[in-house]
Amino acid sequence: MKPVALFRSPLPEKFGIPRQAGVVPQLKGEIRLIGEFAQPQALRGLEGFDYLWLIWEFSLNGDGDGSLTVRPPRLGGNERVGVFASRSPFRPNRLGLSSVRIEKINTQECSITVSGADLADGTPIYDIKPYVEYTDSHPGARCGFVDSNLWEPLEVAIPDCIAEYFDPSEIQALRSLLAQDPRPAYQDDPERIYGLAFGGRQVHFKVSGQKLTVTSCEI
Amino acid sequence: MKPVALFRSPLPEKFGIPRQAGVVPQLKGEIRLIGEFAQPQALRGLEGFDYLWLIWEFSLNGDGDGSLTVRPPRLGGNERVGVFASRSPFRPNRLGLSSVRIEKINTQECSITVSGADLADGTPIYDIKPYVEYTDSHPGARCGFVDSNLWEPLEVAIPDCIAEYFDPSEIQALRSLLAQDPRPAYQDDPERIYGLAFGGRQVHFKVSGQKLTVTSCEI
Repeated sequence: MKPVALFRSPLPEKFGIPRQAGVVPQLKGEIRLIGEFAQPQALRGLEGFDYLWLIWEFSLNGDGDGSLTVRPPRLGGNERVGVFASRSPFRPNRLGLSSVRIEKINTQECSITVSGADLADGTPIYDIKPYVEYTDSHPGARCGFVDSNLWEPLEVAIPDCIAEYFDPSEIQALRSLLAQDPRPAYQDDPERIYGLAFGGRQVHFKVSGQKLTVTSCEI
Repeated sequence: MKPVALFRSPLPEKFGIPRQAGVVPQLKGEIRLIGEFAQPQALRGLEGFDYLWLIWEFSLNGDGDGSLTVRPPRLGGNERVGVFASRSPFRPNRLGLSSVRIEKINTQECSITVSGADLADGTPIYDIKPYVEYTDSHPGARCGFVDSNLWEPLEVAIPDCIAEYFDPSEIQALRSLLAQDPRPAYQDDPERIYGLAFGGRQVHFKVSGQKLTVTSCEI
């Protein structure tokens, strides 16, 4: 296995990465073909598709403990399910799977701007496939424990004096990233300050109940 | 990378494999966990899901010629598109991606009966993930050259004296397999006899226009 591309994202760390693809549609990133795969003809015909599949490596995770069960955040982080019944990043072969929206194909640069990805900056990508509705889309499919544990977005407050560090599209993505509650499922300490690395800056915030407040930002 | 499971299918060869998952929903197969992954708890919680993702290896293909363009059967086998705009099996890292319907989870045997797969018998599987509608399903997504080249099923004639070699569920799957026209896209010789290996038997057929006729069957 050889990476065919690397992902570029404003998110360099695991903390804050959306829990699934599409959860933060405002978040933009770039797929850059590398090595012998960086040839414009490899992308020919892609302009007719809305979505892509990425098969990638959970490269920021260690090998885990080899356990075949995981504790999904959807279940509060306490209940164990089988790794093959979960999208957990702690899994055999560390393969990730994400459908992302194509925003722009940059043929000469051999790159694709996409939105909604849940990949960290620098993630190696092993395959890129077009999303084909008739074989990939199953509206109404039962989704186990995910069905009954829908995610409630947080209310996000970003003071103007901090918001001005970002351009408007960044602030939209940041707001949506924070609204998905990046904290581990089992943490609920209103005094704790968290730090999110985003677009070369470090954003500090705390969460009380359903409200998240950005407290400071470092460049 | 280490296989976590092997696939069991009535189709031992490339010829006749459905062109995508879901094209032959009558076709049943089995995912068998292997080695250290063959533990019932690895499947815990899967019973609530309708579909699975399989990430697998196009193990019956050679390494190809390293070309970054392919000729999809949808385009008549003549036009070239980029490998990353195609689901072609001739691709870097030979990774396949298929969503299959869960029919039965056999916990003690550490296996899952599924339908609609496009994997040959013996295919190594590198990951199994639950299908999660909110992140995986995109009804109405534009699908490039696939949109405008919808597939027309063949009319299939199986003489009664041949049909009796199969049980009713097999004959349904066989009929649907043949209707998707297993011939290479660029072949159209009404006299040519093709052989499809299916469920331990060899099924011979020919195709004239939109009609496929089974001519004989060997055990």
